[in-house]
Amino acid sequence: MSRYFTEHNSEDAVNGRMGPSTDPRLEEVMTCLVKHLHAFAKETQLTQAEWDYGIGFLTQVGQMCSQERQEFILLSDTLGFSMLVDAINNRRPTGATENTVLGPFHVDNAPARQMGDTISLDGKGESCLFEGAVIDIHGQPIEGAKIDVWSDNADGFYDVQQPGIQPKWNNRGIFVTGKDGRYSFIGIKPVSYPIPNDGPVGKMLGHLGRHPYRPAHMHYIVSAPGYQTIVTHTFVGDDTYLTSDAVFGVKDTLVAPFEKVSGGKTLWHSPFNFTMIAA
Amino acid sequence: MSRYFTEHNSEDAVNGRMGPSTDPRLEEVMTCLVKHLHAFAKETQLTQAEWDYGIGFLTQVGQMCSQERQEFILLSDTLGFSMLVDAINNRRPTGATENTVLGPFHVDNAPARQMGDTISLDGKGESCLFEGAVIDIHGQPIEGAKIDVWSDNADGFYDVQQPGIQPKWNNRGIFVTGKDGRYSFIGIKPVSYPIPNDGPVGKMLGHLGRHPYRPAHMHYIVSAPGYQTIVTHTFVGDDTYLTSDAVFGVKDTLVAPFEKVSGGKTLWHSPFNFTMIAA
Repeated sequence: MSRYFTEHNSEDAVNGRMGPSTDPRLEEVMTCLVKHLHAFAKETQLTQAEWDYGIGFLTQVGQMCSQERQEFILLSDTLGFSMLVDAINNRRPTGATENTVLGPFHVDNAPARQMGDTISLDGKGESCLFEGAVIDIHGQPIEGAKIDVWSDNADGFYDVQQPGIQPKWNNRGIFVTGKDGRYSFIGIKPVSYPIPNDGPVGKMLGHLGRHPYRPAHMHYIVSAPGYQTIVTHTFVGDDTYLTSDAVFGVKDTLVAPFEKVSGGKTLWHSPFNFTMIAA
Repeated sequence: MSRYFTEHNSEDAVNGRMGPSTDPRLEEVMTCLVKHLHAFAKETQLTQAEWDYGIGFLTQVGQMCSQERQEFILLSDTLGFSMLVDAINNRRPTGATENTVLGPFHVDNAPARQMGDTISLDGKGESCLFEGAVIDIHGQPIEGAKIDVWSDNADGFYDVQQPGIQPKWNNRGIFVTGKDGRYSFIGIKPVSYPIPNDGPVGKMLGHLGRHPYRPAHMHYIVSAPGYQTIVTHTFVGDDTYLTSDAVFGVKDTLVAPFEKVSGGKTLWHSPFNFTMIAA
């Protein structure tokens, strides 16, 4: 057995180098990372040319990042890594509303609105009444729950992607439930859209024969004192991309009814209850 | 079983998304990458905060890269990944000279020199005669073998790290063997030095209780028609960092004798033969 690094002892050679005062959790995470990184090279018998390509790819991903663009999050999202970490950290009992990815388009401090208000400010798209209740696992209404909602507009863009084109705070708002736990607001039936695909991650999706689209969805962050915060979407059930979301965000329980309304105030009606569990 | 992504089916959900016309080797490599990436998150039960930290770290590594600096290669080197890929791609029979990392400081087209020439042009350091033969696995000399050598200077810097301070081509040269396969040149006994450690990788090494030093070494690329090119170093055996090379480049067979000479033309003498195998 060599006292130096060899193909055979590679994992131990690297992990054995960590100092005695390394933070125990950092040591645990890095040990596992090195194990899987080395196993990846060994199982694939990675070539030098592939290593070169990989270094170049990761460098491009890093250099694509800016204040407005996070290409590494996009990479994590498209490899299902973001959804996996979300799933691991938000296991909930059956009946509780599940989480999904936050996404890059949430903005803090959206305007507070009254129940029944309209959040769609650009007059585009097919109007939809969203309503339901925030309840606990026993079905009891939760008073004072904050519902932060946001969606794209009918062209498939969030307001922050089109400053000067869309009105500020278009398709965003914050609602707080009363005694009955109920909420209602008018938005649009959201539409599907591609994730930013003009960078290295978009190129990767192309090489893998994958499209960059997300199925139409409405975003929610539902929070209330004493309860686990729910970060989630509701999805439009008949969307073309429902079973092939580019970031793997769809869950069975998050597909909401979008029912056509005849002669109503809105074209569509989407009822959905949020079931919270204790923090 | 959900038709959507779940914690349980995560690997299959992502890998099952690849299109039918995906390049088979790309499919093989990506399938293996996703498997290990997801296993890493599951085994560590990676938290959301750790995911955030990792995204931030990788972004910093990418943004540190420039024409003069490749921080992702440094990351690969310090995690033993570069040496592992080198080992996988350069398995050689016992007796053949082993490879090690190329490193970032090789420059193409160094000056051709005559056997016995001095490559050290700055007059610094302890002079050393390097000599030996390029032979095949049966011990027969190889004529016309090209030996491309380079090392740091006595201050621990390569000429390209100190333009204007060191003479151009300091401690570099290319030698070609004659009929006897022998080579000899005068350089300095190289010294240990730290890899660039003012970026995120340097910070990582600090958190892991690791130093950034490489043990003293002379670089070689030995090539000859019909033979596998050898990319390697010889190491100074008594170096403090020999068993803790920051990039894991040391191999038993690459530790060369550095013998003190009394009354000779140089202070040191380092004999080493390069044994090549057929390409």
